[in-house]
Parts: sequence; C-alpha cells; structure tokens
Amino acid sequence: MFFASDNSGPAPQQILDALAAANTGYAAAYGSDPLTAEVQARIREIFEAPQAAVHLVATGTAANALALATLAEPWQTVFCTRVAHIHEDECNAPEFYSGAKLTLVGDGDRMSSDALRAAIEAEGTRGVHGPQRGPVSITQATERGTVYSLDELRALCDAARAHGLPVHMDGARFANALVALGCSAAEMTWKAGVDAVSFGATKNGCLGVEAVVLFDPAKAWELELRRKRGAHLFSKHRYLAAQMAAYLRDDLWLDLAGRANVNCARLAAGLRGAGATLLHEPQANMIFAAFPRALHRRLHAAGAVYHLWGSGTLEGEDADEMLPCRLVCDWSLPEAEIDRFLALLR
Amino acid sequence: MFFASDNSGPAPQQILDALAAANTGYAAAYGSDPLTAEVQARIREIFEAPQAAVHLVATGTAANALALATLAEPWQTVFCTRVAHIHEDECNAPEFYSGAKLTLVGDGDRMSSDALRAAIEAEGTRGVHGPQRGPVSITQATERGTVYSLDELRALCDAARAHGLPVHMDGARFANALVALGCSAAEMTWKAGVDAVSFGATKNGCLGVEAVVLFDPAKAWELELRRKRGAHLFSKHRYLAAQMAAYLRDDLWLDLAGRANVNCARLAAGLRGAGATLLHEPQANMIFAAFPRALHRRLHAAGAVYHLWGSGTLEGEDADEMLPCRLVCDWSLPEAEIDRFLALLR
Amino acid sequence: MFFASDNSGPAPQQILDALAAANTGYAAAYGSDPLTAEVQARIREIFEAPQAAVHLVATGTAANALALATLAEPWQTVFCTRVAHIHEDECNAPEFYSGAKLTLVGDGDRMSSDALRAAIEAEGTRGVHGPQRGPVSITQATERGTVYSLDELRALCDAARAHGLPVHMDGARFANALVALGCSAAEMTWKAGVDAVSFGATKNGCLGVEAVVLFDPAKAWELELRRKRGAHLFSKHRYLAAQMAAYLRDDLWLDLAGRANVNCARLAAGLRGAGATLLHEPQANMIFAAFPRALHRRLHAAGAVYHLWGSGTLEGEDADEMLPCRLVCDWSLPEAEIDRFLALLR
Amino acid sequence: MFFASDNSGPAPQQILDALAAANTGYAAAYGSDPLTAEVQARIREIFEAPQAAVHLVATGTAANALALATLAEPWQTVFCTRVAHIHEDECNAPEFYSGAKLTLVGDGDRMSSDALRAAIEAEGTRGVHGPQRGPVSITQATERGTVYSLDELRALCDAARAHGLPVHMDGARFANALVALGCSAAEMTWKAGVDAVSFGATKNGCLGVEAVVLFDPAKAWELELRRKRGAHLFSKHRYLAAQMAAYLRDDLWLDLAGRANVNCARLAAGLRGAGATLLHEPQANMIFAAFPRALHRRLHAAGAVYHLWGSGTLEGEDADEMLPCRLVCDWSLPEAEIDRFLALLR
Repeated sequence: MFFASDNSGPAPQQILDALAAANTGYAAAYGSDPLTAEVQARIREIFEAPQAAVHLVATGTAANALALATLAEPWQTVFCTRVAHIHEDECNAPEFYSGAKLTLVGDGDRMSSDALRAAIEAEGTRGVHGPQRGPVSITQATERGTVYSLDELRALCDAARAHGLPVHMDGARFANALVALGCSAAEMTWKAGVDAVSFGATKNGCLGVEAVVLFDPAKAWELELRRKRGAHLFSKHRYLAAQMAAYLRDDLWLDLAGRANVNCARLAAGLRGAGATLLHEPQANMIFAAFPRALHRRLHAAGAVYHLWGSGTLEGEDADEMLPCRLVCDWSLPEAEIDRFLALLR
Repeated sequence: MFFASDNSGPAPQQILDALAAANTGYAAAYGSDPLTAEVQARIREIFEAPQAAVHLVATGTAANALALATLAEPWQTVFCTRVAHIHEDECNAPEFYSGAKLTLVGDGDRMSSDALRAAIEAEGTRGVHGPQRGPVSITQATERGTVYSLDELRALCDAARAHGLPVHMDGARFANALVALGCSAAEMTWKAGVDAVSFGATKNGCLGVEAVVLFDPAKAWELELRRKRGAHLFSKHRYLAAQMAAYLRDDLWLDLAGRANVNCARLAAGLRGAGATLLHEPQANMIFAAFPRALHRRLHAAGAVYHLWGSGTLEGEDADEMLPCRLVCDWSLPEAEIDRFLALLR
Repeated sequence: MFFASDNSGPAPQQILDALAAANTGYAAAYGSDPLTAEVQARIREIFEAPQAAVHLVATGTAANALALATLAEPWQTVFCTRVAHIHEDECNAPEFYSGAKLTLVGDGDRMSSDALRAAIEAEGTRGVHGPQRGPVSITQATERGTVYSLDELRALCDAARAHGLPVHMDGARFANALVALGCSAAEMTWKAGVDAVSFGATKNGCLGVEAVVLFDPAKAWELELRRKRGAHLFSKHRYLAAQMAAYLRDDLWLDLAGRANVNCARLAAGLRGAGATLLHEPQANMIFAAFPRALHRRLHAAGAVYHLWGSGTLEGEDADEMLPCRLVCDWSLPEAEIDRFLALLR
Repeated sequence: MFFASDNSGPAPQQILDALAAANTGYAAAYGSDPLTAEVQARIREIFEAPQAAVHLVATGTAANALALATLAEPWQTVFCTRVAHIHEDECNAPEFYSGAKLTLVGDGDRMSSDALRAAIEAEGTRGVHGPQRGPVSITQATERGTVYSLDELRALCDAARAHGLPVHMDGARFANALVALGCSAAEMTWKAGVDAVSFGATKNGCLGVEAVVLFDPAKAWELELRRKRGAHLFSKHRYLAAQMAAYLRDDLWLDLAGRANVNCARLAAGLRGAGATLLHEPQANMIFAAFPRALHRRLHAAGAVYHLWGSGTLEGEDADEMLPCRLVCDWSLPEAEIDRFLALLR
C-alpha cells in the first residue's frame, strides 16, 4: 500500500533491459552516441516538431531550471502558481539558473487565464524599477493531480502571447496528463502555444531522465552550454538515452501512465464510495483527500505509506479532526493493494 | 582499439546487476533509502573518516562545482593548474556555483608546492580590491596521467594550510591514482591535508555517479542545499547508490582501476619499446605520446580510436611532423587490442 | 507644488558646503580618509552601538542588496511585504546580490507579527526541497507613509528571533520615521531586535549616500568585499563621507525630516479639511489620497506635480471616478506651495 | 609631493560649481532630467556617434562590469591582460555581473595582437566543454601608464573581429590616452573597432562619475536594466550629470588630462636626467620607476607620498636594493612639487 510518491517505485523491466543492451562496446561520450540521436529524433516525432531541440538531463529540476534560464532574462519574472514545483520544491534552482524572480499568479493550485492576465498587467508597469515580464510556467498535470484542458492551455498561452511572453510547461507528469486528455503531445504543447517543455520520464518509470524540448531551436546551443555549465551534461550519455529510448518504444510511456491513471481512478472511486472528501478532482495519478485522524492512524498501522499534507500530524489529540493527505499512484501499484487500502476505510 | 576516453566503455556486469537488484519494491526518495545510507557508511569506512559527510551526484563536474562552492566565497580565487578540468573542461561551472575566480598556478600540468606558494603570496595582497585567497584544487591523477606522490600532496596541502586555505581534490581518476600509489584513501586525502574530495566512479566503470566527501561535516547541510539548488539531487536516489555500492563491494573499484593501469603500463612499455616519445610519465591510465603524422594515419586507418592532442590534424601535408595524442586505457580494454595497436607501430 | 518624490528636490546648502570643504588637498582613497572614519564614528554614536560596522554606498538599493546578501544565504527566502521596495522597485537587485528568494508576507503594505509568524511557519517545512527561512526585511517608514510603532517593531523582531532569523530594516526614510516616533535610533533598531539597517540619507536631503549599519561586526569584512565586488566602493570616498558628515552635523538630518513631516501633516490636515479620502494614515512624509478625476485634472492644470498611483489616468472619461495618488513632501517644500495646492481643492 | 594616486586629489572648481548650479528646484529622478539628456547628447557628439547609448554610473568598476555583462555571456571568457584592472582590482565584479571567466592574454602589461590571436585560437576549441570565446577588454591608457597607438588598437580589434568578438575599452584614463595620442575620441574607439567604452571621469577630476558608451544601441535597454539590477541607478541623477557636464564643457576634460600628462612628462624627464630607471615608457600620467631603498627612504622622509610597487618595503636591510614604485600625476599637482621631488633625487 505504497502511495507516498511516484519517485519511489521500481522501473519497468524494459528500461533495465535497455540499460543492459546499451552496455556493450564503446560509445562516443557527451551525447554524441547514436542512441542519443535516435532518442532525439523519436521525441521530435512524438511532438510532430521536426525542428525542435531536444536535450536530456537526469532530474526534473534541471529540466525546469535550464528551460527557464533559456527563456528568461535575469531582470525578469517567471509567472507560476504558488504551488508550482519550481516555486516550492526546487530550493531556488530556477532563480539560481535564470536570475529571474518568480511571480505567483492567483491563490490556488491552478492558473486561470484571467488571473494570469491580471498578474501580467500588474507586473512590468514600473519601468526600469520593477522586474520585467518574463515567461509563464504551467505545470501539466498540476501539483494537485488535476489537468488543464486544451482550451485552458490555449487561453493561458494566449494571455502570455498577448504580451509577447514565452510559455514553459513543467511536464514532470506529462504522460499522465496526456493520457488523461487523450490528445497528442503536439496538441498539448506547441499547438496550444507552449514554447518549451520539461518532458518528464522519471516519475513515470525511468531511473532518472528528462528531456528539455525547445520548439524553436534558435537557443539550442545556448541550452547545451547552460546544461554543461550547470554540470548536467552526462559523460556516459548513452545510459540516459537508453532509458528514454525504452520509455518511448512501443508506447511504453503511455502504457505506464495509463496504468497509473487507472490505478488512481480506481482508488478515487473507492474513496468516493466510502464517503471520503476529495480536495481536488483527480485527473491524473494523484489524489488529495481528507480523513479523520483516527482513520489515518488505522491506515498507517495497517502499513499504508503516504504523506499527510499540511501541518497536521498523526499524534494530535482530536481523533475526529480531518487531516488532508496525498495519495500517489504509480504504474506498478497492484490493484490488490488499492483494494486492501479501500477495505481499511470501511 | 579504443583509446579515446574512459567515458566510453561499458560498465562491469556487477554494476548492472546492482541496478537490477535495487529495482524492487518501494524505496524512500531523495537519498533517504537504506542503500544510500549503506554507501555513505562504506565510503566513510574506506576513508577511515567516521564523521565525513558523503553526498552522491551524477557527474564529476557537479562534484567539483559543489565541493568548491562549499569551500570558496564568491570574492575569492581557487588555485589550480592551467590544465585543470575545472578550468578547461567545465564551461565555467565552478565559477557559476562558487562565484569565485580561478587563479592558474605555474605553467605545466602539475602543481608544485613552490609555484603554489608563489601564487598564494602574489594573490591577496591588494586588500579589498583584489580577489581574496581561497581553496586550492589538486587533480589526482592529473589530467596528463601523472600522479602526485604522498610527499608532493603533503607539501601542497602544507602550502595551502600555511595561509589557512582549504584543499579540494578532483578525484575523477581517484582509484587509478590510489592503485598507482599503493596507499590508503585516507593517506591520499585527509592524512595529507585534503579537506574535500570529488570521489569519481564514472570514469572507472559506473554509469554515472560520484561522491562529494567533506571530511569536516560542518558544511554537510550547506552542501545538501547547494546540491538541491543546483538541481543535482536525484529523486530515485537508490539507482545512484546501487552503482556506488556495487563499485565499492569486494574492492571492485580497485580491481577496475588496477586493470586500467596495467593496460596502460602494457601500452606504455610497448610504445617505449617501439621508440615512441612519451610526453608525460604514465602513472595511471593515460598516455600522452607523439607520433609522426604518417603513423597516426596508419593507426586510424586500421581502426584505432583516440584523440590528437593540440591543433594538429591528420590532414596536414608533412608526413613526418610529430603530432601529440592522448591514449586512455579503461578497465575493459582487452590485452589483445593493445597488442594489435602496438603491432601497428612496427 | 512638487509632490512627486523625495528624490527630486535640492540638497540643503550645508551639504554642498561640506563637499566644497572636503575638496582640498589629497585624501586617501577608498574610505581610508579621516572624514570617513569620523562619519563611521558618528553613526556608531547615534546608534549607541560602538561595535557596529558602518559602510557607505551611494544608492538605497545598494544598501538593501548588500545588507541582505550579508544576512541571507542563496538557498533562503527573505520575508517582506508585497509593496516592499526590495520586491517592487529594485529590478531583482536583492536576488542578484543574495541569491535568495523573496517571500511575501500578508496582503497589505504593513507586516503584522501574526502574518510574519504564519509566513515563517509555512516556509521551511519541506526539508531540502523548499527554500530555507532567511532574514526578515522591514521598511520603516513604510512605502505607504506609515510608521511601525516600537511595540510593532519589537513584535516583528520577536517573531523573527523565535526562529533564529535576522532582521533587516530598509530605512530609506529612517529619519522621517524616527522623528515621527520621537524615539532614539537605538530604540528603533537594535534595542527592538534589528540586526542591520539601510540608513538612508538621499531621500532626506543628500545628493546620494546611504550607510549600511551592521550591529554585529562579525560580517564587516564580508560586507566590504561584497561592496567592492558589487562595484559600490567609491574611490574618492571623501565625497560620500562629506555629505553624510554634514547630514548628521548639528542634527541637520532630524531637522530636515522634521520639516518634511510637518509639511506632510499640514497637507494631510488640509486634505482632511477639504473632505478628501486618505488611503493610509500619514505618519511620515507621504500621503496616499483619492480624488475625482476632474480634481486631478484641475490640479495638474494648475501645475501640481505628483504621481497617480495605480492604473488610472487623467485621460479617462468618467470625471467623478476616484483615482488614488501619492503626494510626497520633502524638507524643501515651501508652506505656501502646500497652501496653494490646498486652495485648489476648494 | 603627492604621487600616490589620481583618486586622491581635489576636483576642479568648475565641477563643484556645476553641482551647486544643479542644486536648484525640482528635477525628475533616475536620469529623466534635462541635464542628463544634455550630457548624453554631448558624449554622443564627442564620440561622433549619434546613435550611441550613454549611461552614467558612479564608479569605474561599475562601468566595466556592466559593459562586460552586456557584451559577454556567462559561459564565455573575457580576454584581458594579467594586469587589467578588471582582473586584479575589482574583486570579481566582472565575473559577478557577467558570469564569464577572464582569460589572461600574454605575460606583460600590454596586449599584443599576436598574443590576442593566439589566446583566442587556444580558447574555444573544446566544444561545449570549455568556456566559449567572448569579448576582448583593452585598457587605454594601460595600468602601467603606456598608451596603445591607433595602429595597435586597430590590430587588436581586427584580431577580435576575425572571430566575431566584441571589444570593450576600459577608459578609466581615457582622456590621458586621448591627449597623448592627439586623436579624436571616435578614432580611438569605434573607428578602430571598439564596441563599448567605460569612459572614465573620476580619475581625471570628477567626484565620481563614469559613462558607459555602447556604439550599437541595440542593448541600451538591457544595460539600463542591468544598471538598476546592479543598484547603480542614481535617484538624484542630476548630480552625476552635472559633474559630467562640467567635465566636458569647454574641453575641461582635455585640459585636465593635458595638465596631468605634462606633469608626468616633467617628472619623467627629471627622473631620466637624474639617471633613474623607468620601467615603462610613460605616455600618460603614470611612471613606474625603480630607486634604491635608501632613496625611497629619503623621499618618504621628505614627505613624498607614493606606493612601492611589488613586495619590497622601506624596512629592508639592503640600502642599495632597487625597489620599483608607481608615481601618478594628476591635474592638480603643482610644478613646484614635482621640482621639489626631483631635487631630492640629487
């Protein structure tokens, strides 16, 4: 009953096999190997973007920070929500790489195009004194397990473009969102107006690999230099490429995300059936729910692993107090474990 | 006949096996897993440094940049040679992470304690105007395949300590140097006066993992924060740890380095026997030699892969012109390939 | 009728005279001159802080950015209000110098100790992932012309100290606040718990000089190096010192601030008498008021100079629409001008 | 007998008068005042560069750091000599502002075009691994009191342009060099191939003001934002502008530099007449000479103020040891003082 994170489960066998298969003979270092070229081509194909620049890194924070540094100037702001990973969970990495300030849009976990428009208009009105308007960063799926519709994405990108601002998508859970929307990668990105994507693969089954995709390749070389300067260029690059190649082969990535989403839907349905309160509409592979403290204790005692969300603790006195928690489903979660968890609710 | 780099060969099977073995069930993310703790303990044991702080990263540049950022202030200089990896091959990453300037010591590929003393004395005499003296960074084995003796290391560290400066060791080829000296890891580091080590494992057989070792743990938490802020904290950290665990188990790391060094010695002996000019004394796993252009052409035509070193090219007119080259031996190089290469010299 | 800014009026004659007096013979450069030492001693005396480190710079943004860089680590946050000068009006200078992120406290123009406590508690709960808690920056007088009472300052500093966080005071209008409170400089700073002050003199009559005061001198040398590295160390430092010496001589600084505050009180009383709406309680030398557009037009037509505050413009259609504006009084403003302005209101 | 620095003498009366004249009434802040516009126009006229972007700052280090940050990318190098002010005397400010590394050209105090060509060719040959080639920074007059001829400047700029690299001129002693060459400001800069100039005025008589001149205005706005972000935008900007306006009026700047150079020539002639060894050909306002220790003692005892240059001290035992020193002449130095100094040599 492991619902703590999608950073904690195993990788599918195909990815381990690909590492083993790549581990023969000599390969040019630093991304000059044929497997890297193959993966770049495959990602361009998936995104229907034959000109796109594609660079691999090992962490999602690196993908975000490098993409934003390439889009933003150090005297600008990056617009994002107050729960954005780049704001809350990257220990100032985006600021370190870009020099820019983060401007928080709205109060919630999703960015509305109205709130974005208002934030853009409020910013950048102070001439040389204030920071200047810079890129917009959208998280898809969001940090609360919801997904922006294509209409919403287009409206956000339109609001950015109205001021000439580029758009970055933090796609740490890109595949989960894509499967949820049932659209193409191109539709969810450049066709909607997105300029750069952190295309995540780690949370969805890889050991550690992400791609930065720039649809306009004009800054491809700059991104390469920033990656090296950030110490993110792998010498034995074939092992990054091998993971990503296996991940994309035969739609494994979509299959994995589909399984995670189905797991999540099964869990959500069960929770609802048991009368639990869901705090956000679960559209990808995460659920935020609130249970009484007593139930949390029972679940933990029975071996369920997940995080309370917020400042509440199991140790509090009031057994009835509702405490929010986060339940993440990954591809590897057995149905039986979900059902066992749900059985404990009753 | 692959002598281009120790970044290009395969990993030994034990390391792949360790990845597969680690790939079961759920593990806490971000380095809180038991395998990471085990690896940290093992590295402390190897270094006979029970208090040392040990942090894993995936690239040697990250290890160097983070270690130096922790030792240096942004208004200081880092003393290193003009062929140091941190100066020539890291695209300003050390400057990016630390803010410090690099001050080049001496003219050659090795740092002498006299030259270091002179450089330290020349620096830091301009009050608030000049950069201030900061850490000394020593590369062991050097970028030219030579190794500092323990006496030399002690003399360098003494020169640094005389001015209260900390010492960093870039140990991208730490194991090769250690095997060459036949001493302990403690003797080659803190017993000689080294404060922080970039303990390389990638060039010596891993897919991509290095450890930053700080013998004084006072800045352990700072290093963790810098690692996260630099986007170098792996979420699925067990896969870094598994590589390093296998690398250190049953002295695999020493065995791999020993093989690489033996390969190198065999190649060096053969080169000398054939009358070739060696540009540095090969003490680890790299040889710098000069051959006539015609010989380079013959070697390349026969399939030998290695880099010319400097501005010369195969295409020049003068067949007799001597062109330097670098020949790197890794653990996986078959003896027969070395002998085939040597046979081409005759 | 110039109410646009306290950056626009002339300097009092004493300060010009002091420049002329300092302009004789040779003086050691870079702050080693006797006038600088005299000014540092005088500031320590004023603050009753014999150990304090005092450094002069030419701009308020430099004072803030250098002070914060000395108090904050690059992986931390700086707590401030959303209207803080360091957030809105310094084009990312604090982030550039410190590397830290700014965390906005509360919604208004003043920081309450409750809101600060809540913000501190919300921050720094994510381990290595989130930015860490760093210094609190308080603006006294605030950007809206109000002043924190000593009790409020103590409560803010207590909230910071409860978590071991240092406190910075942006004192661009320090003298105006001090005169308003009628307390000592020590009471308004270190006795309340403040660690570092940007002691402004430019807005209150100097050509361009501010002092950074660190009550704990442990980081004095670091601040000097940061000042030089930031290109803020004046070579002909005596001309900074001369301004500040004249400013502090015979309580000129308090006299100037007193005049500005009296001007402001006269204007505020007149505005209230005319039935105008004041948006904040004017306690120093600035008033935020709302007038109908028609009145703004009349005032501008008559030659009044001040800024509308917000997105409204004189050109709008609705003559009755209330538009906020900012009215700043400096020491040099003639009473007759205030009265002429007030007469226009009737 | 004050020869210590051109940062230590008084400003000419015209500049103090200009400050007093500017100190009337209200002026728009932050460079929007008419005096600033007038100064910018005058500098464009002097440089025969009607499109040039002109920005004022208060320190030479600020001018250099901002100009270089605008010309260089953080993954590049800046080519300069090993005695360049940006390398030796700015405490890493150029690195802080630009992120770039400084690459030292040649061994001496002047840059030859051959050495520059060699340095450029050696750099930037390592693909993504090494730093990339960036701007060339030339100091005119040099830090050793010599001046590049127009031919030399053109050759240096040609070497830079052959690789598409921009050229910066550190003109802290611009006027001294210009007077020495007897050419126009345009000839010494853009007509020779210079892209950006730090146009110094402080060492030549102002209290503290320098101009950054960008001949291509494409990055004018970027420079403004960098200036603000660096905390170098003056609020009461008229006082910077007033100094520069007076400095340029009626060729005062050329007159001041002419006087300093004439003083220097008188001193140099006298030194030579007395058989002293000059270490560099004095072409502007500085002399580097070597005297026996005993003579230094006599000069100091008689009240001469200047710096020994290097590690020698007055206190050493050997009275005959030759110790180098630097003798700087500024505009204000009375002839009689020079003659008194020379008389002491006999």
